[in-house]
Amino acid sequence: MTTVYNFSAGPATMPKAVLEQAQAELLNYNGTEMSVMELSHRSSSFINIVERAEQQLRDIMHIPDNYKVLFLQGGGTQQFTQLPLNLAKGQKVQYVNTGSWATKAIKAAKRLEDVTVDVIASSEDNGYTSVPAFGAENVDPNAAYLYITTNETIGGVAYHDIPKFDGVTLVADMSSNITANDYKVEDFGVIFAGAQKNLGPAGVTIVIIREDLLKEDKTLPDFLSYATQADNESMLNTPPTFAIYVVGLVLDWIASRGGQEAMYANAKERANLLYDYIDNSSLFVNNVKVENRSLTNIPFLTNDPELDKQFIAEADAAGFKQLKGHRSVGGMRASLYNAFPIEGVHALIDFMKAFEAKHKA
Amino acid sequence: MTTVYNFSAGPATMPKAVLEQAQAELLNYNGTEMSVMELSHRSSSFINIVERAEQQLRDIMHIPDNYKVLFLQGGGTQQFTQLPLNLAKGQKVQYVNTGSWATKAIKAAKRLEDVTVDVIASSEDNGYTSVPAFGAENVDPNAAYLYITTNETIGGVAYHDIPKFDGVTLVADMSSNITANDYKVEDFGVIFAGAQKNLGPAGVTIVIIREDLLKEDKTLPDFLSYATQADNESMLNTPPTFAIYVVGLVLDWIASRGGQEAMYANAKERANLLYDYIDNSSLFVNNVKVENRSLTNIPFLTNDPELDKQFIAEADAAGFKQLKGHRSVGGMRASLYNAFPIEGVHALIDFMKAFEAKHKA
Repeated sequence: MTTVYNFSAGPATMPKAVLEQAQAELLNYNGTEMSVMELSHRSSSFINIVERAEQQLRDIMHIPDNYKVLFLQGGGTQQFTQLPLNLAKGQKVQYVNTGSWATKAIKAAKRLEDVTVDVIASSEDNGYTSVPAFGAENVDPNAAYLYITTNETIGGVAYHDIPKFDGVTLVADMSSNITANDYKVEDFGVIFAGAQKNLGPAGVTIVIIREDLLKEDKTLPDFLSYATQADNESMLNTPPTFAIYVVGLVLDWIASRGGQEAMYANAKERANLLYDYIDNSSLFVNNVKVENRSLTNIPFLTNDPELDKQFIAEADAAGFKQLKGHRSVGGMRASLYNAFPIEGVHALIDFMKAFEAKHKA
Repeated sequence: MTTVYNFSAGPATMPKAVLEQAQAELLNYNGTEMSVMELSHRSSSFINIVERAEQQLRDIMHIPDNYKVLFLQGGGTQQFTQLPLNLAKGQKVQYVNTGSWATKAIKAAKRLEDVTVDVIASSEDNGYTSVPAFGAENVDPNAAYLYITTNETIGGVAYHDIPKFDGVTLVADMSSNITANDYKVEDFGVIFAGAQKNLGPAGVTIVIIREDLLKEDKTLPDFLSYATQADNESMLNTPPTFAIYVVGLVLDWIASRGGQEAMYANAKERANLLYDYIDNSSLFVNNVKVENRSLTNIPFLTNDPELDKQFIAEADAAGFKQLKGHRSVGGMRASLYNAFPIEGVHALIDFMKAFEAKHKA
């Protein structure tokens, strides 16, 4: 049987051990004779699941005590609106445009009536193949926040050094490289991330927010208020219970494998293998500026759309799934998140080498 | 080993056959060698899952072709805001207050600046133990909609006949009795329901909306726009994929057991058994007006809070789980949704009889 490697940008590959545990206890969680899906979210069994998941995330990411952790719904897309509604009503906000996801965040913030959006830097001119340069002279300490996308899932661009400016609240969409980096939570005011790439299944969004940024605002709907969600320990209403449980299992798996430091080392190892091969290939290229290359999302192409198509089809038949690049970039993309096995990278490179040998003209 | 019966108000008991199927294919969905949790939401495998779930819901509920079905996130709580934002900006809306959930919906609508909320009837005076009387003379056809809660999960009050008024758009929170009733979709403009009671796990919300009510409104955030969600087939961003998959399995199970008509018959059978016993008991009472009693949520009490506590503790020890009533009502509550087995009702009644024999004084 062909070994299947899943390069999907998310939902994505999950640790096999996690799926096996979820499977083993699917009809009887911890002796309750009930599935986790059947547990009341107010039951002690489920509250214990949430509390453990939060503590595990705190330990793995070294989250300081003055930060709240929220488990919400709606993905990054909801955060694009929820974040400015909570932090920036009647104020100016500053964004760095690094690609598709930053663009979406900017568009959502601009739609809000009483928020003024200032894009201080953009790499649109070079097709979003780098993190644009900017410095203290571009940053307004009176803005409610400075917004970055730490990793662009589609363009394959990432920050390796987090920009820091005195008195500026940095907020980040960390959806595609949360826990696969060496960032420090204390450098951010707010971090958000959908779970479906590095931390588990789709349907739960993690928000990490410094407590001084929690503001009661009774004009906001309760479900959109960070303060209200924090007051209710993410249980304002029924949370996505099973998704949170699986995130907890993935966090346990991360902890057992050495934590965020090990995930970051693994991410570097996987990415360097693939970039090294691509950079020495006479067929495949990656167009991202070397110092801004993502560790988790690696786009590549042959510069011949027909050959790209052929590669994707042959790779799919050989068990390398979901390698098609996003339509806005074309070519191929390998998403290599925490749970992606290094053997899959070696196997992909071997397959690319064989394809290159046949097609390098 | 004690048989466990789970009376939770939601998340709630699910069909064992559904859990077994989810368990069997958890690591390898349909020959993909991937878990459903690992499938890209843009993959043909997952699109097929969503399309099948939608068609099954359409068949079971007899949803006319001029209605859209959306799979969203955020639960009923998000709908309390999303509904008026989409249908009623700058307009008046009318609500019937039947209890805790209607009260929450009214509160959320009142928080919106440009919506005028008119509560046309309330049963607050009798402790929400009935559906309040109202008629055409109370209903303003110029209001954007008339809002009802078809079943109050906490109070145990339900509509058995849906009020209809010419030219009035009726919208309904059907969270706790969707598919366990004989309502007709064409009597409603919008129906919404969290899945976690009658249809599956928490984390996905079903919205059924008549197409003429879909309005483009570029001042709304995309994720809150019904029209945008409909244009994107509920895939504006990553949906809660695993929750949708399990809902599809539950819908298949409902279809295989005779559809909504059978679920409604089963609901009546379960509820009538329990109400008959309670009405003939000299210890337990249910205070809801007979013609407004819920089929899915049955509160009962002994009128002695200490005895209630004792009952709940003894029942729990005997395998009858989550019978504690909501703190706002006290006493006990048996939630009997689609997947609740009739044997569990017989067993509960036997247990209540034995308790009654010991305590009727």
